[in-house]
Amino acid sequence: MADDATGGAGAPGFSALDPLIRPRSVAVIGASDDPTRIGGRPISYMLDQGFTGAILPVNPRRATVQGLPAYASIADLPVVPDVAIIAVPAAAAAEALGALGAKGCRAAIMFTAGFAEVDAAGARAQEELLAIARRHGIRMLGPNCLGVFNAAIGHYGIFSSSFENGWPHAAGTNGGRIGIASQSGAYGTHLFAIARDRGIGTPLLVTTGNEADVGLAEVIGWMATAPEVDVIMAYAEGIKDGPRFLEALALARANRKPVVMMKVGRSALGQAAAQSHTASVAGDDAVTDAVLREAGVVRARTTEELLDIAYAATQKVYPAVNTLGVVTVSGGAGVLISDAAESLGLLMPPMPQAAQDALRAKIPFSSPRNPVDCTAHIFNDMTLVGDFTRSMVEDGGYASVIAFFTQVGASSTVAPELRRHLKAVRDAHPDRLWILSIVAPVERLREYEADGFLCFEDPTRAVVAAAAMGRFGQAFAIPAPEPPPALEIELPDVTPTEAVAKQILAEAGIPIVEEFACADAEAAVAAATRIGFPVVMKILSPDILHKSEIGGVLLGVADEEAVRAGFARIMERATAAAPKARIEGVLVARQISGGVEIAMGILRDPVFGPVAMVALGGIFIEIFKDTAFRRCPFGVEEAETMIRSLRGFPLLDGARGRPVADVPALAAALSVLSRFAAGAGPTLLGVDVNPMLVLPAGQGAWAADAVIEIGGGPHGH
Amino acid sequence: MADDATGGAGAPGFSALDPLIRPRSVAVIGASDDPTRIGGRPISYMLDQGFTGAILPVNPRRATVQGLPAYASIADLPVVPDVAIIAVPAAAAAEALGALGAKGCRAAIMFTAGFAEVDAAGARAQEELLAIARRHGIRMLGPNCLGVFNAAIGHYGIFSSSFENGWPHAAGTNGGRIGIASQSGAYGTHLFAIARDRGIGTPLLVTTGNEADVGLAEVIGWMATAPEVDVIMAYAEGIKDGPRFLEALALARANRKPVVMMKVGRSALGQAAAQSHTASVAGDDAVTDAVLREAGVVRARTTEELLDIAYAATQKVYPAVNTLGVVTVSGGAGVLISDAAESLGLLMPPMPQAAQDALRAKIPFSSPRNPVDCTAHIFNDMTLVGDFTRSMVEDGGYASVIAFFTQVGASSTVAPELRRHLKAVRDAHPDRLWILSIVAPVERLREYEADGFLCFEDPTRAVVAAAAMGRFGQAFAIPAPEPPPALEIELPDVTPTEAVAKQILAEAGIPIVEEFACADAEAAVAAATRIGFPVVMKILSPDILHKSEIGGVLLGVADEEAVRAGFARIMERATAAAPKARIEGVLVARQISGGVEIAMGILRDPVFGPVAMVALGGIFIEIFKDTAFRRCPFGVEEAETMIRSLRGFPLLDGARGRPVADVPALAAALSVLSRFAAGAGPTLLGVDVNPMLVLPAGQGAWAADAVIEIGGGPHGH
Repeated sequence: MADDATGGAGAPGFSALDPLIRPRSVAVIGASDDPTRIGGRPISYMLDQGFTGAILPVNPRRATVQGLPAYASIADLPVVPDVAIIAVPAAAAAEALGALGAKGCRAAIMFTAGFAEVDAAGARAQEELLAIARRHGIRMLGPNCLGVFNAAIGHYGIFSSSFENGWPHAAGTNGGRIGIASQSGAYGTHLFAIARDRGIGTPLLVTTGNEADVGLAEVIGWMATAPEVDVIMAYAEGIKDGPRFLEALALARANRKPVVMMKVGRSALGQAAAQSHTASVAGDDAVTDAVLREAGVVRARTTEELLDIAYAATQKVYPAVNTLGVVTVSGGAGVLISDAAESLGLLMPPMPQAAQDALRAKIPFSSPRNPVDCTAHIFNDMTLVGDFTRSMVEDGGYASVIAFFTQVGASSTVAPELRRHLKAVRDAHPDRLWILSIVAPVERLREYEADGFLCFEDPTRAVVAAAAMGRFGQAFAIPAPEPPPALEIELPDVTPTEAVAKQILAEAGIPIVEEFACADAEAAVAAATRIGFPVVMKILSPDILHKSEIGGVLLGVADEEAVRAGFARIMERATAAAPKARIEGVLVARQISGGVEIAMGILRDPVFGPVAMVALGGIFIEIFKDTAFRRCPFGVEEAETMIRSLRGFPLLDGARGRPVADVPALAAALSVLSRFAAGAGPTLLGVDVNPMLVLPAGQGAWAADAVIEIGGGPHGH
Repeated sequence: MADDATGGAGAPGFSALDPLIRPRSVAVIGASDDPTRIGGRPISYMLDQGFTGAILPVNPRRATVQGLPAYASIADLPVVPDVAIIAVPAAAAAEALGALGAKGCRAAIMFTAGFAEVDAAGARAQEELLAIARRHGIRMLGPNCLGVFNAAIGHYGIFSSSFENGWPHAAGTNGGRIGIASQSGAYGTHLFAIARDRGIGTPLLVTTGNEADVGLAEVIGWMATAPEVDVIMAYAEGIKDGPRFLEALALARANRKPVVMMKVGRSALGQAAAQSHTASVAGDDAVTDAVLREAGVVRARTTEELLDIAYAATQKVYPAVNTLGVVTVSGGAGVLISDAAESLGLLMPPMPQAAQDALRAKIPFSSPRNPVDCTAHIFNDMTLVGDFTRSMVEDGGYASVIAFFTQVGASSTVAPELRRHLKAVRDAHPDRLWILSIVAPVERLREYEADGFLCFEDPTRAVVAAAAMGRFGQAFAIPAPEPPPALEIELPDVTPTEAVAKQILAEAGIPIVEEFACADAEAAVAAATRIGFPVVMKILSPDILHKSEIGGVLLGVADEEAVRAGFARIMERATAAAPKARIEGVLVARQISGGVEIAMGILRDPVFGPVAMVALGGIFIEIFKDTAFRRCPFGVEEAETMIRSLRGFPLLDGARGRPVADVPALAAALSVLSRFAAGAGPTLLGVDVNPMLVLPAGQGAWAADAVIEIGGGPHGH
């Protein structure tokens, strides 16, 4: 939503949000003397938490507000505030915003509700607010937002009641600091409250509400460079500005700031996807998944996972090559953890044999393979805890270690000695991710955390968090691949016939099955003879997209006579099924057999632009939803990664005695398709190449049918 | 492991465990005066917790132990104890057990370790223990077990150190009581400790250790009738006695006691499964899943889920028809909850329109469909909380209600009024499952729990728990189907040829594709002529199981000449590939086309006996693992449920323009196969019917190939 007209939002920096989040002075328009009212809470909170800057209440009816001198109007303010909180009724909001602009203020937090979230009139009023903000170069948070807090400076531009049970921790026990970026105020403070109760540091919360101006993308971008936070936790219901969002994520990745995100609900993609036949079946959420994965973001499925992963990330250990070592006092827990690790693809290589022998010499009944089941004997002599964990990092070389000690470490008799030995090993290897799966009173957990251990009661949650740290590590270690250039494409103005569609794709570099458009039966015979029998015959009409459904496709047409008869039959069927269709004849094409049928396509995501899809054809898409997506354009390597990510990939790789298929050729075609879509512009609604026949290695991949859908103008549909 | 020779373990009762779990007197063999030693802890705990019976320490070197009179030997005990705890070294364990038997004691808790968990010598020593126990009719827990607690009577026959941080709650805030049955002592006490810290009642813990005698099945069975517990939470690494286990689960189901279970690790099925070609690929864990589902058990994937579901079950509300209503102050949370409910198949029907209109009249900006987003306005007037929730149960009729109130209910200013209104509605509708998703200090949570609400911080966890209550409700409402009778089957002594295998299955009632065994080419021609062309030809040899792999199958053999040529070709290939194979000729069979290829089979699970599998053929099994399992025998209805549970079921149901397949015929054949397997006895290792060709509705399902594998003797492998 932010465009260049706003000035401050210009790429690449996100510093335009500085006054909103890091102000030196805060005016409160509609300030209340009552600290429980919306216009009173921010003042009360800032007074309580010692805001480092000036608080400037504006209230025409009071000389003081909560003990501070109040000003009768915005014009009367003695200075230009860095930011103004607007807590006036909707009818007065626009006037307040205009007055702030006139005063020279360039940032506003609009608490006021009753805009686009309500009805069309509200949406118009919101447009008006935005126009005023733009006119004055004001960056506006909201309207209908809960606000911002920045605990480090005591800035509480927020009217949440959630501080009744405690203030945010400026940092966690391990010093970690999470910034929360949330569209939803209720959900953002829900996250903050859980984090606070778990002792996790969340010095920063920004809620964006209706996002008339400032959106989640900019908030994430600001946090990506802000020294105030180490980890970014985001909650979104929808992404509005795809390019800005990706820019923000790229900045976070470049700065080694993990982003963990929950994205709920359906994007508007469903709508667009329905226009693109084959690609529509898997839909929106898979695109979100693909985009976030590409950007190095870990997507959380539950609130708990979101918090767990953000918490683990505050340890700032992100192994680029993650391996998990598990030491446990319960064999069962070891199996449980191994099962979880395997399902997440987190590797648990065995300990070296010599190290196993050495550990078994120390505890005869231990099983020191990995999981290392040391049994409760390990607590008979705490030096064993040191020996075992040291061997795991020094001999086993694990990047992450989970120690399942259950409630043993909770005991006041055991804990001091246990801590001492654990800490010694941990301090010698601070580059590893150390996690205790432990049941203990909260004070005890804080002690372990202060020593540099993450604590999780549930071992499965520990595994999920450890796996996520590896994914961050990979993203930080490997820069995002440079996308190949988009192709230069001139599209026709309207949806072309199959023949033209294939010609366009062929010119772009996608291999097409040899074929000829034939206006009459004799031309069809000539084409078939040139191609060689058997051939495929298909109705050729700009008005008939789904040819099979009307019986307009004949396979295995074996000789001249059959071509003539087939031509007549197709004409007859087409005329019967679609009397008004323009019929241009038939396509005669080489019949390819022995290939694996693939579907590939393009759909236009309203947020992220053209997205490519690949899948095994037919039932694999419709029933098994076995698809892979990626934003366009991308190179051959990424295309091959997509193809290999399909569950059905073994069908291309020699499963059940099949020949190995020409995956490089398919990957090349998929990459070209992505570059085609990237260059085609917004009138390209979708492409559907189905089937794409992938022959055995060395024989290529050939598009046997293709649809290109064109719509709208340059700003169309 | 328990068989009839033990007397007390005889079906159907489980009362033989009474002295172990509910004793009136406890002897401690190897009693220690030191309350921190293994032989001292139980005495210390029972003294502390006021065991209601007699504690009888046995120690030859002391007159008193922890202030109690001690006895020099078992023979010296003044009474026969109900149970004896044995805490002596392994070398002395057998003697102690024998002395107890001689004394007349009939129950022992064997703490002593160093038996089967260590090595073969230990396993032999354990067999010796068991023999002594059997000889005296002693029911033995362990060896190598942590023991038992029964908090209601202060029985702490356990040496866990986990009570340092607190004793178990006899009941939860809502009065609920969970019995924990765990093979693993460490994991069992891990569960207890978490439950205790969450205020959940776990008055009973039984850990079974090596399970030489008493196994998890009996413990579950005991709890199923015990008035001490309402809910059973079980943890297993392997099930030893399948029939007894199922009997225990059936008893729990009949008594409306929910069983929630975590089963980790791989069963021994992998081994057996490898012997049965097609059915082996999905393997063991799917069988466990199927067995538990059939028995009405909810299987937990994580520790947290295990505890969450058990906790929710203590509310004792198990809706047979579950629907979820969600009231939320955050639209985002509503979407999140809806996503989770959908993925679990928990229905969220909309509120009736009239009720929606009435609610919208109360809060204009609410979205009262379901989720009912009431916005934070609901807290402006707490009577609205009552209005909204009442309308949801009275108008919406939801069996389960989740209220996402985040930290609002935590506030001391808000909570009393909120509680009052919530409680009034809840008390008027105690038959509903009421869940708050709330962030609050633990004291406040206890208040809501005392009012009859379950509390979950994470809304997704609330949904998982609510869905599980519906699954219990279904299991309690619908009795387990009566299995049909097994067929009377006489199997050959060795693995038969394909022709004989099909004949056996045909006699059992499974439709087989028409075919003839032909010893020479002319017989093959005659058979083909009788069947009608085209035909399928297959090598016929008892020594060649996988015919396709040697080129021993020809499809679409079109005429007499082709039959002659095909016969010669098959003979040639078979001789080349398997020179020593006995070759009996070829099978000539009707070539069926247009059917859907299904694989069905039998594998013998070492715990649960014959298990049937059904899957779509080929890649669907191998690559997509799209299979369904069920214990044999079962009826046609259950067979159809299995078939419909396949992800690929749409392929049988008319997807993509296919004809609807004859599913009733397939279900009938699958049920017959299950009855065949149930009657075939233990020499049946496996059956593999692949492909089973399912024709369009009314045309039947036909086995085109079948393998029956026979092995061992009546007690074989």
